[in-house]
Formats: sequence, C-alpha cells, structure tokens
Amino acid sequence: MSIRIAIVGYGNLGKGVECAIKQNPDTELYAVFSRRAPETVKTLTGAKVYLLDDIINHKDNIDTVIICGGSATDLPTQTPELAKHFNVIDSFDTHAKIPEHFSNVDAAAKQGGNTAMISVGWDPGMFSLNRLYAEAILPDGKDYTFWGKGVSQGHSDAVRRIEGVLDARQYTIPVDEAVDRVRKGENPELSTRDKHIRECFVVAEDGADKERIENEIKTMPNYFADYNTIVHFISAEEMKRDHSGIPHGGMVLRSGKTGLQCEHTHIIEYKLKLDSNPEFTSSVFVAYARAVYRMNRHGNIGCKTVFDIPPAYLSPKSAEELRAHLL
Amino acid sequence: MSIRIAIVGYGNLGKGVECAIKQNPDTELYAVFSRRAPETVKTLTGAKVYLLDDIINHKDNIDTVIICGGSATDLPTQTPELAKHFNVIDSFDTHAKIPEHFSNVDAAAKQGGNTAMISVGWDPGMFSLNRLYAEAILPDGKDYTFWGKGVSQGHSDAVRRIEGVLDARQYTIPVDEAVDRVRKGENPELSTRDKHIRECFVVAEDGADKERIENEIKTMPNYFADYNTIVHFISAEEMKRDHSGIPHGGMVLRSGKTGLQCEHTHIIEYKLKLDSNPEFTSSVFVAYARAVYRMNRHGNIGCKTVFDIPPAYLSPKSAEELRAHLL
Repeated sequence: MSIRIAIVGYGNLGKGVECAIKQNPDTELYAVFSRRAPETVKTLTGAKVYLLDDIINHKDNIDTVIICGGSATDLPTQTPELAKHFNVIDSFDTHAKIPEHFSNVDAAAKQGGNTAMISVGWDPGMFSLNRLYAEAILPDGKDYTFWGKGVSQGHSDAVRRIEGVLDARQYTIPVDEAVDRVRKGENPELSTRDKHIRECFVVAEDGADKERIENEIKTMPNYFADYNTIVHFISAEEMKRDHSGIPHGGMVLRSGKTGLQCEHTHIIEYKLKLDSNPEFTSSVFVAYARAVYRMNRHGNIGCKTVFDIPPAYLSPKSAEELRAHLL
Repeated sequence: MSIRIAIVGYGNLGKGVECAIKQNPDTELYAVFSRRAPETVKTLTGAKVYLLDDIINHKDNIDTVIICGGSATDLPTQTPELAKHFNVIDSFDTHAKIPEHFSNVDAAAKQGGNTAMISVGWDPGMFSLNRLYAEAILPDGKDYTFWGKGVSQGHSDAVRRIEGVLDARQYTIPVDEAVDRVRKGENPELSTRDKHIRECFVVAEDGADKERIENEIKTMPNYFADYNTIVHFISAEEMKRDHSGIPHGGMVLRSGKTGLQCEHTHIIEYKLKLDSNPEFTSSVFVAYARAVYRMNRHGNIGCKTVFDIPPAYLSPKSAEELRAHLL
C-alpha cells in the first residue's frame, strides 16, 4: 500500500511535490488543499483540489501532509494546527524562531499522536545535516556555508519595491576566491562582503532615474549595503528570456585538523547545483514524507528535524537491499 | 561521565583513534588491547596496553570497543566475538561479505544485549550515507563514486610483490574529464578505465629490469590491467621524502532529474580531501562510538550500519543546541 500524501498550498513548492510524488512509486498524491476556491486551482497532473478548511474530513485518507506555505505567516499557525490531526512536514526557515516553532509543533503532534517534521529542505535541511556530520567528525575545525549561484526571492522582492522598478531578479553568488581559500584549508575569517556577491537584473520604467535606482539598491540596509552589488538594467524581454528559471545551490564546507600535533588537514564539502530550487526542496520533502510515515508507524511521535531521522527511513529500499547495494 | 573507549589493534587506525579521542572531551581512552606483548607496544599518548586475550576482564570499564583490525582475517572473527560482550564498531569493507558479517555480528550483539556497528569509516561509511540520501532525494538519477587522489595500500602491496621491487606507492586518481562530465549532468556511461588513473612510484633493486617491472605492473589482472597506469622509478630517498603520507579522498556524485517532463537537472556532490586516510577514518569511528553508546543506552541493540543511526546521536551537543545552531 502506498503512502498517501496531501499537499497544503499550491505554489511552486506544492507543484514540485506533485511532480516528485510521480517519481516515487511507493507514494501517491491524495489531493491538494488550498485556501483558494478549488474550482479556480488547476493542477499539473489533474490531482483533486479541496478547500483547506475541509481537510479534517479527509483524515482517514491521508498518511502525511506536506505543508507548502511560507515561514513568515503560514507555517507558524498551519503546522501546529495540522499536526494535531496529521503527520506533517514543513520547510520553516526563520532560523531565530525555530525553537519556538519546534515547541508548538511538538506539543500539537504529541497531543494527536502524530509525527511532525519542521525545517525540511536543503537549507535548513540537507545543509544542516552536513554541518552536523562534518562537525561531529572533525570537532577541531570550522565550517562555511556558501549559497548560490541562485535566485533569492527575498532580495528580488526588495528590489521590486523600489520606485521605478517594474521587475527584478537577484542572484546570490559565492566569491570564488573565498571558496578557494576554504578548500585549501586556510580557515580564513570571512566577512559578509568576502563571501557573497549580489547581482541584480532590473527592468526599469521608461524614463526612470536609473542612477537613483542603482544607488537605492546598493545602499539598502541588511539586503545589499554589506555586499558588493552589481546592477544591470535590462528589457522586459531579456528578463523573460534569460531569467525565468529558479536555479540555486551552494555548498557546506568544513575544514578540520587531526593528528597528535593537529598536523593533518581534512576538507569535507557538500555541494548542490540545482536547476530548480522549489523542485529540489520538494524532492527532499517527499523522501522525508516517507520517513515521517514510518516513524509514526513505529510509534515515534512528536516533532522531529532532519537530525532525528535514521537515514534508512528515507529510502524505499529494505535494510537488506541498502546494506547489499549502497553500503 | 565520559564515554570510555577501548581500542583493539594498534596500527595506523588504532593510533588515529587514540588521537581523535583527545579531540572529543566527552570521550576517554580506557586502554589499547593488542595481540602483541603489551610491554612491546609504545602508545603515542602513554595509554595503557593490555593483552587482547584479557579484554573480558575489563568489561566493566569499557563503554565501546573500536576494532581497528583488517577486513580479510581479523574482523570476521573479532567483531562477532567481541560483540557478545561489548558495544563494538568496525570498518569491515569487503562489500560482497557485508550481509554475512552483518548477520554474524547481529546475532552476537543481540545475545549479549549489546549494540554493534559494522562498516564505519568513509567508504563504506560517509560515502554510503551520501549515496543513500542522494538516491532517496533524486530517485530518477544515477550516482558515481570517484576515489582519490590517494594512496591505495592494496595496490601498493601488489607492486611490492613483483620481483626486483624494493618499495612502491600507488595513487588512485580520478580522471578529471569524467568528473567534469558528471558535474555537467551528462549522466555518462563510464568504464573502469574512464574513471580512474593509477600512478605508481617504484624503487627498484640495483640492476633490476625496469622494463619488465613496468610491464608486469601494467598487465596485472584486476589491479592494473583495466586502467591507464603510469609508472615512475624513483630512489629510496625520493620515496621517503615525497611519498610518506597517506592522503586520500574522493567524491560521491548524483545527477538526477525533476519536473513534470523531467526538464530540470540537479547535481549533489559530497567530496573529501584527506591528508591522512587512517586519521579521518578514526575520526568517523569516534563520532559513531558516541552514537553506539547512546543507541545502547536507549535499548537499541543488535547490529547497525550508518544507515540506522539518527544523525543527532553523533554529536556531543544537545538536541536543543543542534536545532538552535546547526539547523
């Protein structure tokens, strides 16, 4: 019997989950649940759509709910609410609020006898896992996370809010020299500016003051002021032609010492190069949906993170197959 | 109270574990156990040495035994024997015999109420983990493991057995072009020869027939015949000066597709660059010694592999700390 998954929220992430489920024969999509009127939501694969408010009526048909909402306003309420009734997964990524969110979701999941996972994806998610493994193996070391090259939605939105800007796309790009120094085991101290470049492609209104726009971008606190920022003005056609994708990626590196005199250096690197950020995140979601379902079947309830899940739970293969073919 | 570790076998791996324990304040080295007469074994840190035959008398002082023997003859008997009395870890790496070894160790550990782990290190070990995670996330894909640049002891030994050879060191080197094709997402079919080069440094006896030696190396079945092999003859001084280290490393790559039409490609890469192969393996050992001890305290007995261990068990940090700082 396959694992019946429900998708809550049907944006890029929800669509990615819909596609990823097709690649995993032991999972099936039960339905999409949306706040929008179901008849207005057209799914990629013809999956059924129901009103989110009615999800409780479908309880017996759902093994795991994948919540594809945003961390700012959706997840803080949706995840604890749904965890009372379902096994759930979210991608909560507001780092400072993870302890509070964990605690709310944990209480709700335990109340319902369910298993929940928060902060699933690649960062938080696979990058977190790699930070943990690398630090545990090389305690005398230092880790570095670089993001990109990839599109940051938050920074793109910030540029779009500037007067005279019609559209914008911001790429976060690791500084090659910084990455090379880490790979060489130099353990450098790197400032924000040393680690990443921000490159913006902007479609301006006809007659807009481009110098002012460029200056407003480059001096914007938190978003751009601490970085070397490059601004290009392009046409709406160029934006559509060259910047429609949502690529991303990055790397987690740890450089550490071993030996009686700490004379040996080791570099552990985990690197992602993603054509589609939401589709990769969705693929991580579906693997962990399998794990959450299994954890629950084994009586392991409450809130979990990627740190708590035995790796074998992610794979459809049996323990014997894994030992024989992947070990 | 710290985790009391015993080392069985005192070669390069055992010495590496001795050093790694010093880097992990929540662990301590109880003693080294050797088949050699204890008074003839001089430890790096002054650790006590006992006869392996007496280890059972030290049962109450040991939380986890790290078995640093070889897969060919030591581990198939030592690990099940010791698992009857202790929590144990080994680095068994004879892939074809893993199912049999697992089954023997599992029965012994369960009989003693102990927790055992086999095939811990980087391959098998961290590379296996990365194969599993990447395959679970990107089921529609292909994985590639490259080893090196690094010293292969088995291949070095094979060259040393040739008549007229005084000493030899063999480096396994990934073929850059093959790695690049995988990184580009081409999903190439790669033969043994396409993936790795073998480079040998050989000290020959005075007057030895170098042409014959080179030919014997390059045509040796299994070890070299299927590879492009480069042979250099060097002096004993050069060998000592330039080839005393035991570096190694490699990478696990997975290239996979997502999207409704499989239109997006993603590359996951895990890469190690190690100054000392045995010291890195030892560092993985100590992190998993912590995990094995905790699994046992939680009543989780029997034989495990890296696939079965929740990542958090490897870290000395609490679940709260991990969520707050590494997630």
